[in-house]
Amino acid sequence: MSTTAQTADNGVNVEALLGAREALSQAPEAAQFTWRARNEWVNGTHSRSTVEGFFGLGEEQKHRAPFTFDADHPEIFASEDHGATPVEIVLAGLASCLTAGIAAVAQHRGIQLRSVKATLEGAMDIQGILGIDPEVRNGFGGITVKYDIDADASPEEIRALVAQSQKRSAVFDVITNPTNVSVEVN
Amino acid sequence: MSTTAQTADNGVNVEALLGAREALSQAPEAAQFTWRARNEWVNGTHSRSTVEGFFGLGEEQKHRAPFTFDADHPEIFASEDHGATPVEIVLAGLASCLTAGIAAVAQHRGIQLRSVKATLEGAMDIQGILGIDPEVRNGFGGITVKYDIDADASPEEIRALVAQSQKRSAVFDVITNPTNVSVEVN
Repeated sequence: MSTTAQTADNGVNVEALLGAREALSQAPEAAQFTWRARNEWVNGTHSRSTVEGFFGLGEEQKHRAPFTFDADHPEIFASEDHGATPVEIVLAGLASCLTAGIAAVAQHRGIQLRSVKATLEGAMDIQGILGIDPEVRNGFGGITVKYDIDADASPEEIRALVAQSQKRSAVFDVITNPTNVSVEVN
Repeated sequence: MSTTAQTADNGVNVEALLGAREALSQAPEAAQFTWRARNEWVNGTHSRSTVEGFFGLGEEQKHRAPFTFDADHPEIFASEDHGATPVEIVLAGLASCLTAGIAAVAQHRGIQLRSVKATLEGAMDIQGILGIDPEVRNGFGGITVKYDIDADASPEEIRALVAQSQKRSAVFDVITNPTNVSVEVN
């Protein structure tokens, strides 16, 4: 790494990540993760999700604390707005995945970040979810993510950071490519 | 509706939703929504997303309060675990979308729910996001959702509820089908 790389501090332990990459390339079974969430209906369209344990590196893992997410529909849908809508929660997942990647890639490239802000918009024709028009999809017509980044780097280097984060982002992949979802009732 | 339909109370105002469907089928431009999230980097892989305003029914709308979501990576990735991982947040979005739909469909069908619980698992080979194997995708290999539902209904009616929710779920569509995501840097 260059001197610049050694002085940038974005709070990401790149050496540990490179070590993990090296270790997992020798032991691919440890790279098999299972992420989990529980969800419980509260009332109406309001539910609460909890994230706590996951599986990875060959064993059960736990977050330092359980994280909960209330979701609901807004008042204009005759709901009580006790939380973000599920689709807004997905936008938050996309944003946080890309931003974490930007911080990690910047650290790896020795670029000091000062601030990273994103605004996301997802267009949706709700004629889909309301069942008005079967030609209209239920989900987003498209999503735009706009970053404002202040960093010790040129505009080209900043664009390259964002592009690399996008290339390695799990949530970007989940949204842009199809994933099989099996829904079962016990 | 049957007598059963009139006595079920799941806290969902189905009449308002049917009215909205009728109104929007006459005014499709009001059905064009834009959902939004902002995201701000905190440090390392920790960021905070905020959901507050959205556009719909032809005008700017606001939630009753801003909703925030902290995201981070876990300690086994050498991060500080200040929040759920972005992919767990996506699972929470999927769960809450399906559960809200189950409550709405149950209300419409006059089925009284007593409890609705889901557990979600998303398999991921992290050789993808670590860049070890270009053949491995970054996102989930697949997701399973398992519901336990206690309701005044037969097992067949409960399975049909879940199937109908899945059919109209925005997040189920976002995850199972491709969506275009444009990432820009200002």
